[in-house]
Order: sequence, then structure tokens, then C-alpha cells
Amino acid sequence: MVLNKNSQTTFCIVGLGLMGGSYARALTARGYTVTAITKEQESLDFALQEGFITKGATTPDASLLQEANMIVFALYPHTFLEWLTDYQHLLKAGTIITDVTGVKGSIVYAIQSMLREDVEFIAAHPMAGREVYGVQNSDASIFKGANYIVTPTEKNTPEAIELCKELGRELGFARISCLSPEEHDDMIGFVSQLTHCIAVTLMTCTDCEELVDYTGDSFRDLTRIAAINDEMWSELFLMNKEPLLNNMEKFKTEFDRLYTLLKAEDREEIREMMRLSTARRQLFNKPKAKTRS
Amino acid sequence: MVLNKNSQTTFCIVGLGLMGGSYARALTARGYTVTAITKEQESLDFALQEGFITKGATTPDASLLQEANMIVFALYPHTFLEWLTDYQHLLKAGTIITDVTGVKGSIVYAIQSMLREDVEFIAAHPMAGREVYGVQNSDASIFKGANYIVTPTEKNTPEAIELCKELGRELGFARISCLSPEEHDDMIGFVSQLTHCIAVTLMTCTDCEELVDYTGDSFRDLTRIAAINDEMWSELFLMNKEPLLNNMEKFKTEFDRLYTLLKAEDREEIREMMRLSTARRQLFNKPKAKTRS
Repeated sequence: MVLNKNSQTTFCIVGLGLMGGSYARALTARGYTVTAITKEQESLDFALQEGFITKGATTPDASLLQEANMIVFALYPHTFLEWLTDYQHLLKAGTIITDVTGVKGSIVYAIQSMLREDVEFIAAHPMAGREVYGVQNSDASIFKGANYIVTPTEKNTPEAIELCKELGRELGFARISCLSPEEHDDMIGFVSQLTHCIAVTLMTCTDCEELVDYTGDSFRDLTRIAAINDEMWSELFLMNKEPLLNNMEKFKTEFDRLYTLLKAEDREEIREMMRLSTARRQLFNKPKAKTRS
Repeated sequence: MVLNKNSQTTFCIVGLGLMGGSYARALTARGYTVTAITKEQESLDFALQEGFITKGATTPDASLLQEANMIVFALYPHTFLEWLTDYQHLLKAGTIITDVTGVKGSIVYAIQSMLREDVEFIAAHPMAGREVYGVQNSDASIFKGANYIVTPTEKNTPEAIELCKELGRELGFARISCLSPEEHDDMIGFVSQLTHCIAVTLMTCTDCEELVDYTGDSFRDLTRIAAINDEMWSELFLMNKEPLLNNMEKFKTEFDRLYTLLKAEDREEIREMMRLSTARRQLFNKPKAKTRS
């Protein structure tokens, strides 16, 4: 299978929220046919009115699923697993399914081992998002400049891996890469989940409400992500428990070291740490790296 | 003394870097006469050419100091103390001096107790800055929307406190407030210094260089301030050692609590923490509070 525009390839989006809606908008704009299955009629009505799906259903509709060449699951992790358990018999043989889940190790193997032999699941993580939710806030521009990570296992075919990368390119991502589920989870435990843990801790470690009037950009920047969807993020934390705990430990150890250096007034070591930090941070200011695969 | 425009009030800026230069630009634009004493002839030449000082000297010039009604020290904390020890005999009786130092308890009392009786030091912290340095990067717009904090002690007169607040208003700060040196240092230990400790730790706790390609906005936001002037910040950390250690302890305790909750898979408590974080963070999104004094 290859992706064909001019309505020859049909995507079905299961879960029409911010991410599912943004996929639907981007794929429709690129010339594909897009349908959706989602719980709320209101979400379907919105997407139909805006013209970024052609059809939709509020329950797993056999005909929509049979028409789809590729199905994108944009659900909470546990809902994704439940959905497939209940409805995978409705899928057409040869369907490729993919997802948008932010954790991989705890999802990918579980799904691949319970999935029908004639359907292939190739996992991907679009590293894009906003602090708002729902299809009403969907916006294909969130993919611009962002990373798209495919996390194949040895159960995946080269064709499905290539197809999934092509999907990332069609969505408009800046960088498409492949990582193993384990590499992905360790990376995400550090750059995304650890940072959310820190932001939440900063807001809850002291009664900071009286500090609103004295807050500068540093504190606002570090806590922007402290306004957090507790249902989704607690699930992601728990599903990535070991990699996240490992990254929290690394951070704790180094933070304790800085604390000890300050207590001992070891200025030279503190400066050395700051110099390393400065040198490394400058790498992150560089122009975006070229696409890797 | 009150501030008089039309060149009747003369400010002398000691230390013409980013902050001193930005003061000079703002005050000149508001109609005051501004002179400068700074080590580099190049800095003076730049400021003279740009027209935001009228005169300058590279050594503590008696005539410049005698002409000044108010002197603003924009030096590193230890240089500020040394300067006054060596040159306070050159000041005119009745001079009001102020500063821009980011720590207060370790500076204000030391200076007030060694200062001549006929000169008054009223401390202030302009909570503004940029990640670049030098008078060439000075810019009066950095004060817009920012906080200006006066930290008087019982040695200060009501007149000097009022004058210092007026200076903050003339510079264009959005909020002028008064805190004791101790309140200031605790606040700054939390909103500024602790956040810099966290950013530095994030960059040094693991070899994150290979993560450049996978980094999203969260990580970039949390580490923007990890590129840090190690000479200045190590001095500020050490001069605010106890308040900073206290805030680091609060953070560590709460971070450990989150770690323990995750380890125990106590999802409900994690969600509770996230909900508190979200509610508090929303306060920081509110329109800027009105000016307090």
C-alpha cells in the first residue's frame, strides 16, 4: 500500500479531539478522504461543517471501518486497548493502523500481541500539541516544525514503517525519525514527562499565589506546562513509570549535588556546572537539524 | 529632593552594562541629565554616540560625582561594596544612592552600616534583564511590564523611599512594590534562583546532546535560562545562600513526594497534585495585577 491522494486513500480517525481533528484537517487539505468515529455527535457535526471529514459515526461503524485503508487511533492509551479488544473484528483485512500515543513500550507490544494477524499496527508519536483540548481547537499548523517519531518493532513490515513515515511527512512534520519503543520512552520520560513533573512540583511545593505580582519570565516559562490535564498525564506517567522514575532519579541526584555544592560554597564547581549547562543549552538554539530517518 | 526633569536632576550611572545602559537610556528619554562612570572607554564612547549620557569617565571622577543628585550602582555585588569602601569620600553630601542588585539581605545592611551619615542608600531590584550583556544591548523597553521592588530598611527616610519608587515609575516599570530585604530574598530565591538551579540541573543531569532532535517546546521553555552567566549567577547564589537552600529544600521535598506517589502508583494523589498545580498556574495567566506600593 502507498498513500494515494485524489481521494484514493481513505483515513478513518478514531477519536476526534485536538490531535485527531488536526490529523483530519491536515490530511483533508492534502487531498485524502477522511472519515471519523468519535463519541460526541457535536464533534462530528463540527468537523463535517468545517469540511475536514466526509462522514462520521458515534459508534464503531462497520462500513466506515471497511472503507478505510489506514486507521489513526487518537484515544487515551487504555481506551485504545479496550477499543481494539472489542472491535478489531470489524476491521478489513490488510488495514494498517497507527496511533498518536505519547508512551510506547506499554502499548505497542500489548497491542501487537493481541491484534489479528491480517492487520498491522505501526506506532507513531506526533510530538505536537497545545494546552487546549477538543476538535474545536484542532489546527494542522501544530505539526509545523515538530517531531514525528515512528516506533517500529520486529513485528512490523518495512512497508508499514515507510507508510507511517510518509504519513508524518504528509502531515507536515519537520523531522521524521525512528526509535525503538524503549528509546522513545526514555527520551520522552526526560524531555516531556520529567519537565512536567518539575513544573507541577514548582507550583505545589510552596503557596506561591502571593508571588503572582513578582513573577518574571523565568518562572512563567518554567511553569507554563504546569496547567495540565490530570486525567491524561497521570495515565501517561503511570504507563511510563520505570523510564520516568529513572529520569527523576537522575535529576534528583544532580539537583542534590548542586545543593551540596552551594551549602559548601564550592563556587568553582558551581561555575563549572553552569558552564556545562550553558554550552549544552546553546546546542538547542541551533537551527533545526535536518530530517533524520 | 524630588525628581526634576528638564535637566535639573542629574543621575550618575556607575557601571554601564546592560542594566546601567538601559537606565541611562530610559532616564535620558524622560528628560533627565545622565552621566556615567564605567571601566571601559568603549562603553562610554558608545553611550555618548547614542546620546544617552552627556558625560562620562573611566575612573571615579570627583566632578561627575559632585554634580549627581542620585547615583545608580549597576555593578556586581562585591564590586559595589568595594567601590563604596574606596570612593565614598568623593560623594556630595545629600546624595541619594540606589542599586540594581538581585540580592538584598547580604548587601543592604553591609552598605548602610559602612556608608557616610550624609549619604543615603535606598536599595531597589529592577526585575528585568535579557540573556545578553553589555551596554551595546541596553534597551529601555526591558522595563515595560516588569516589576520594580524597593527594599527599604529602618535606616531609610520616607523621602528616599518615595524618590526610589518615583525612579521606578520614571523608568517605565509596570509594578512598583516594597518588600523587606528578607522578603525579597526569599521571593527571589524561589521565582528566580530556584528556577535557574532547575534549568541548569536539567542540562547537566544527563548527556542530553543527542536529544536536540527530539526536543519540544516544554524542554526548551524549561531550559531557556540554562544558558547562564556563571560569574554573576554563582555570586548571586552564594550571596543568597540560606534563602536559596531553603527553597531548594521545599522543591526537593515535593519532588520526592511525587516520585514516591508514582512509585506507589497512587494515581488519585498524583491527579490531586496536578489539579492544584493547574489551578494555581491559572492565576499566573491573569492580566497583570494593578500597581501596588
